[in-house]
Amino acid sequence: MHRRAVLGTLGGAALGAGLAGCGPPPSAPAAAQAPPLRWTMVTSWPSDFPGMGTAAKELAQLVGRASGGRLTVDVFGAGEKVAPFDVFDAVADGTAQMGHSAAYYWRTRSPAAPFFCTVPFGMTALEMSAWLYDGGGLALWRELYAGFGLVPFPCGSTGAQTAGWFNREIRRPADLRGLKMRIPGLGGEVMARLGAAPVNVPGAELFDALKSGELDASEWVGPYDDLAFGLHRAAKFCYVPAWQEPGTILECTVNATAWNALADDLKAIVDTCCRAVNESMLAGYAARNQQALAQLRDEHGVVVRELPRDVLAALRRASEAVLDDLVADDPFAQRVFDSYTAFRRQAMAWAALSDDAYSKARR
Amino acid sequence: MHRRAVLGTLGGAALGAGLAGCGPPPSAPAAAQAPPLRWTMVTSWPSDFPGMGTAAKELAQLVGRASGGRLTVDVFGAGEKVAPFDVFDAVADGTAQMGHSAAYYWRTRSPAAPFFCTVPFGMTALEMSAWLYDGGGLALWRELYAGFGLVPFPCGSTGAQTAGWFNREIRRPADLRGLKMRIPGLGGEVMARLGAAPVNVPGAELFDALKSGELDASEWVGPYDDLAFGLHRAAKFCYVPAWQEPGTILECTVNATAWNALADDLKAIVDTCCRAVNESMLAGYAARNQQALAQLRDEHGVVVRELPRDVLAALRRASEAVLDDLVADDPFAQRVFDSYTAFRRQAMAWAALSDDAYSKARR
Repeated sequence: MHRRAVLGTLGGAALGAGLAGCGPPPSAPAAAQAPPLRWTMVTSWPSDFPGMGTAAKELAQLVGRASGGRLTVDVFGAGEKVAPFDVFDAVADGTAQMGHSAAYYWRTRSPAAPFFCTVPFGMTALEMSAWLYDGGGLALWRELYAGFGLVPFPCGSTGAQTAGWFNREIRRPADLRGLKMRIPGLGGEVMARLGAAPVNVPGAELFDALKSGELDASEWVGPYDDLAFGLHRAAKFCYVPAWQEPGTILECTVNATAWNALADDLKAIVDTCCRAVNESMLAGYAARNQQALAQLRDEHGVVVRELPRDVLAALRRASEAVLDDLVADDPFAQRVFDSYTAFRRQAMAWAALSDDAYSKARR
Repeated sequence: MHRRAVLGTLGGAALGAGLAGCGPPPSAPAAAQAPPLRWTMVTSWPSDFPGMGTAAKELAQLVGRASGGRLTVDVFGAGEKVAPFDVFDAVADGTAQMGHSAAYYWRTRSPAAPFFCTVPFGMTALEMSAWLYDGGGLALWRELYAGFGLVPFPCGSTGAQTAGWFNREIRRPADLRGLKMRIPGLGGEVMARLGAAPVNVPGAELFDALKSGELDASEWVGPYDDLAFGLHRAAKFCYVPAWQEPGTILECTVNATAWNALADDLKAIVDTCCRAVNESMLAGYAARNQQALAQLRDEHGVVVRELPRDVLAALRRASEAVLDDLVADDPFAQRVFDSYTAFRRQAMAWAALSDDAYSKARR
């Protein structure tokens, strides 16, 4: 009866998941009080790069909608305004008010930076959120970036990735020796310690280099991006897990002067939209990765393998050595490392009894 | 040099994680255009209940800040305005504009409802977000609730819980027979199929009932809430995993008429704040649960055990039967079940190669 009455009122129409554009106009354009702001966001990705580029655009759209147009953000892809690795400086010096990138690119500014993004054998995306927001991580991140005139926000995650695509099988640690692999950053250093030859190949040349045998292996992102890039047609063996990037967190940086000039409600909007994108990108990747995995298996016959235990053990030991060296001469980085490591230790203990135990039970 | 210059400008002060209250006043109080709205939020939890009650308050605060006070939400704990299980009806009939509760309480309205919250051997919190936002789940949820005059939003998760606290050891399925356990909802039905006697005990009486032996066992939430409730002093054995609630998602419901009258920017704010709270509560629980687990172990000597494999297998089989029966006579519930089940199947395949494989590698 109650149900029928309400159905009558609404005409039984589902509201649907898309909720914008069906209400009265914004109650507060408020142009008289403060002129609308127009910000520039520079990013380290092509503007339509699925996952990362689209997350940057989603952030801009959310901020625009939630502010009723009082803060409009124009998004520029990598190279459109500044080069991908100039995002940090461009936001710091006010060329742009906002940036979307990844902290592990800024290692030369501080060896602590990668811990705010991902490090080999580090935390998962959810553990990172817990550490950043509820374990002191974000306060450390803000302390570091304040020195550069930036305010950072966690803003999106790829979630779990893959270890990469390989032209040959990896059976034991010795198989990594001499391996020419596209694997940037700390992961590359770890591989180098085990005798591999990490090389840097621009994304646009990756497929051909792998296909031709110029490269023996390459990591990229996860099943979704790997499939879109066609890596399954370039190399035979796909390995997991993504020991090199277990829970990559992207960053939104805001120029500190622009931030301080922002009204409190717009600050809350930027902060909240970043947090929403943080979840949205992670959930989106989870959905697309699981679908892409099914496609890779069912339509392309790809067998995804786990790296052998002794290979992973060797990678883990080398990773520990790389991280120890990374923070050795920098007291702030050591502080971040200590906070990160203590949190990870507890996180692993709880993961064993929660998600891991549940996964076993569900199988 | 650059770093030093910026440090000089900012006086080296860290911006800190708390970002409110340091900018100019809101640029758009906009009282002239539309009077500020004042909404009532009714909830199913005591207003300061850690985790759930605090998430409801966080949502209200975020909405208030992001809207610059144009939408103020007054939060009422369970029983302060309506009884905990009247939240659904109170928001539907306009007694309140907003509610914070859990969809599995509304099974009598539709057997599909629990799938939007959690079901035995269902999806984890992250998988739920992926299904809801990127797998069609939220559209189904909105279709269902539209029939009641409600718009639902995922709004917070406890993450992984525990299987509960037991006065006796569980070694095999037969040990569940006759077990008097506080375990509500579908989990209780599953236990009943294995011969246990699920009983309902109000939270306030739980500790004494367990301590006195009136109850043999009780599930509650996770280490954080369990510790706060003192359950380790009432029962000896803590078991995992939380097969009965593997990834509970809470809901924010909005009265459809109130929603439709909302300006687009306020709609975007409510939507985005719910999503932010969805991540915030999950991350907060992860951080607090791992810390509570360490306390339970180190300070209270609690040994957390995994339920034996054959017990879990029996629970899983019984769960499948309970869910099959649940949706059998309701075509809409069957549709939701099919969508949920198909998504979970893919999610499990990807979990095995991502989080599970990584957990093994990290140990």
